[in-house]
Amino acid sequence: MRLSRYFLPVLKENPAEAAIVSHRYMLRAGMIKQASAGIYSWLPLGFKILRKLENIVHEEQQKAGHMPMLMPTVQSADLWRESGRYDDYGDEMLRLTDRHGRDMLYGPTNEEQITDTFRSHVNSYKDLPLTMYQIQWKFRDERRPRFGVMRGREFLMKDGYNFDLTKEDALHAYNRHLVTYLRTYERMGLQAIPMRADGGPIGGDYTHEFLVLAETGESEVFYDSEVTDIKLGQRDVDFDDKAQCQAILEEFTTRYARTDETHDEAIFNEVPEERRRSARGIEVGQIFYFGTKYSESMGAKVVDENQNQVPVHMGSHGIGVSRLLGAIIEASHDDKGIIWPEGVTPFHCGIVNLKQGDDEADAACEDLYAALTKAGLEPLYDDRKERAGGKFATMDLIGLPWRITVGPRGLKNGVVEVTSRKTGESEEMTPEAAINKIIAIYANL
Amino acid sequence: MRLSRYFLPVLKENPAEAAIVSHRYMLRAGMIKQASAGIYSWLPLGFKILRKLENIVHEEQQKAGHMPMLMPTVQSADLWRESGRYDDYGDEMLRLTDRHGRDMLYGPTNEEQITDTFRSHVNSYKDLPLTMYQIQWKFRDERRPRFGVMRGREFLMKDGYNFDLTKEDALHAYNRHLVTYLRTYERMGLQAIPMRADGGPIGGDYTHEFLVLAETGESEVFYDSEVTDIKLGQRDVDFDDKAQCQAILEEFTTRYARTDETHDEAIFNEVPEERRRSARGIEVGQIFYFGTKYSESMGAKVVDENQNQVPVHMGSHGIGVSRLLGAIIEASHDDKGIIWPEGVTPFHCGIVNLKQGDDEADAACEDLYAALTKAGLEPLYDDRKERAGGKFATMDLIGLPWRITVGPRGLKNGVVEVTSRKTGESEEMTPEAAINKIIAIYANL
Repeated sequence: MRLSRYFLPVLKENPAEAAIVSHRYMLRAGMIKQASAGIYSWLPLGFKILRKLENIVHEEQQKAGHMPMLMPTVQSADLWRESGRYDDYGDEMLRLTDRHGRDMLYGPTNEEQITDTFRSHVNSYKDLPLTMYQIQWKFRDERRPRFGVMRGREFLMKDGYNFDLTKEDALHAYNRHLVTYLRTYERMGLQAIPMRADGGPIGGDYTHEFLVLAETGESEVFYDSEVTDIKLGQRDVDFDDKAQCQAILEEFTTRYARTDETHDEAIFNEVPEERRRSARGIEVGQIFYFGTKYSESMGAKVVDENQNQVPVHMGSHGIGVSRLLGAIIEASHDDKGIIWPEGVTPFHCGIVNLKQGDDEADAACEDLYAALTKAGLEPLYDDRKERAGGKFATMDLIGLPWRITVGPRGLKNGVVEVTSRKTGESEEMTPEAAINKIIAIYANL
Repeated sequence: MRLSRYFLPVLKENPAEAAIVSHRYMLRAGMIKQASAGIYSWLPLGFKILRKLENIVHEEQQKAGHMPMLMPTVQSADLWRESGRYDDYGDEMLRLTDRHGRDMLYGPTNEEQITDTFRSHVNSYKDLPLTMYQIQWKFRDERRPRFGVMRGREFLMKDGYNFDLTKEDALHAYNRHLVTYLRTYERMGLQAIPMRADGGPIGGDYTHEFLVLAETGESEVFYDSEVTDIKLGQRDVDFDDKAQCQAILEEFTTRYARTDETHDEAIFNEVPEERRRSARGIEVGQIFYFGTKYSESMGAKVVDENQNQVPVHMGSHGIGVSRLLGAIIEASHDDKGIIWPEGVTPFHCGIVNLKQGDDEADAACEDLYAALTKAGLEPLYDDRKERAGGKFATMDLIGLPWRITVGPRGLKNGVVEVTSRKTGESEEMTPEAAINKIIAIYANL
């Protein structure tokens, strides 16, 4: 992409309404624009990253055999009356009435809709196990929306639902979700720690929240410092292997790690003092096993091997996709702007032409641009007639992990400069070496 | 994908509520499930195709330099009061009130939101031309929703908006959209004819609708039979080349082709009688140039080269993405089921094992499955213990363009059978030849 043709309305000043760094940088980098309180438009740069996050979620869910589908945003109130949640949900539910006077609502979650889909189509244990998920917009009418996309009203969420014959099978689905979530977050450059959580209005005996440590987090968290040493990494996972998935669950959840909602001082004090940590965390996902709560109330039953009608065991599992953008920025930035992890960066590298209009510099930039594009990468070429300082400030603000700087002086010596956004370190090398370096960085992502 | 693990709830009976073939087959093939009147869940097979259509639209828009972004579904009523459309829109607009009593609405279209985005960020002619688009859910509260996704209430639409300094530039944007739309439909296996249309509530002097000929179409159309002979094909298009885009517009729109709304019998009669056709058509897209209608009323102005504040010239351009699924089926099916064009098929081919459990047949199927998957294709392997007849019926219903049938008898002679869904013709060949044939078919898509 050439910056002269891209819609990137960066702001020089800090917007007054933005209280936290992710909100500030998302506005300043031209990623979002507020449409109404807690409701945002995603401008091209923001949308590009949102789409990348979505794709990572899709890939990791599908590796585990979970099936993508999509439910509508507008739901019938009747379904929620069946489960008993229509009256329970309170003011956060956006209720509406259609032209025929029917009560509808903008879905804040989808347990009812998916259970209705299930009961309409599945009636034998032979069709189990089954896990379906969607990535769809939700609405929660927060009383006081704030922090940009971190606590918006209209937000994009991945919600997945498993249907199993037995509790054991459903707990395997729970474990599968834990593994897929760990990998999803790691690919996004995040360390998200699974913490024992509270069931809340969705209910559930087994539930973990995934928290990213960040000063601006809404939750206070308490953990054994050993939990931050564990990584899923590239290990092979067979999602049909119950023992392997269970072992990963235990590896990641045996040590103490809880939010303030479930924190237990007595148990925490059993952790050796030098490993006890308290910090703040941002919730980026949650998994639940809630047994037969919805299947009983809504009649989602199957015939088992003995011809008995039994309610299925269910769980639901969510990742806040739009919120993740904010969380990544909270976890990865400096005073100049965002620092995108390589797995989610909107463009793989920036190309800064120090002297736009200089034949040699222009040609070298075009060559770099062509070679990187040919290698399947997306560079962002700042081809505007701006001063170097302004170009650097924009690149630093929008946070591409790598920058190639091209100028007449370097080209005389046959070199360009490759700079890491994270460390700020620069290295001179030939354009060919720069291309190979960038290609190598992204080869394993 | 193995069918034993896929959620594909096919129905044997024709659902009584489905009046047209696409609705019937989408329900029977387990692609959609009605959630409320005119509101559907997209089950895994339907969602897979929807996503393919979305990706084609994204690719073709981006080739023309149009930038993807995303606007929220819930909009503030105030914006619509500014343009004057809040009161005009009538009962089709789903109006709602948030917890603080603010008037909101579920967007049926987005001219106001995009104009607001534009005026907040752009104030110089130097930032033009600019075209942004989104693929987002919309809601129109149809009085009588029907025909499944063809006339639903919640529907997925691509809507794009161009902002230009002059009418000439805006008409070039119009032409670019015409070209991208033609290519989009052709990739989906559709012939969509641009027809002179009526501006309707969006307004506009220049507007064309794209219509797919089908008996069940909602519009009566009249055209010169020569229009169905023109194809865009694989020709190279330079979207910066105004003359080339204008020439394509003329090539595709000079001959008579109008819907009943703009039909003019006198002009039609100038077409040689043997080329005059009347038929029915399904509207799958529309492009508009509407000048300064919204930029004037909403104050979207830029400074021109002479430092004058001038309102920008705009157009909006839509493709009904969810409706396209129905349109493709209406245009491509037989009495056994759907026939997916290769460009949009959910799986590239089916593999039918005639004797599940037979070691040799199972092994041959697994080999085919592995080889096709390795080649980057997605086969759907019917590995269920069902009778051949049932397996064939399912494959025919869901409409994969190619089927490989594997059975012990054929394998004794070293062959499998490759069948075209469209022609019904079968050919025996070695498994290797079958793999190469399928790979070759999709190599250019």
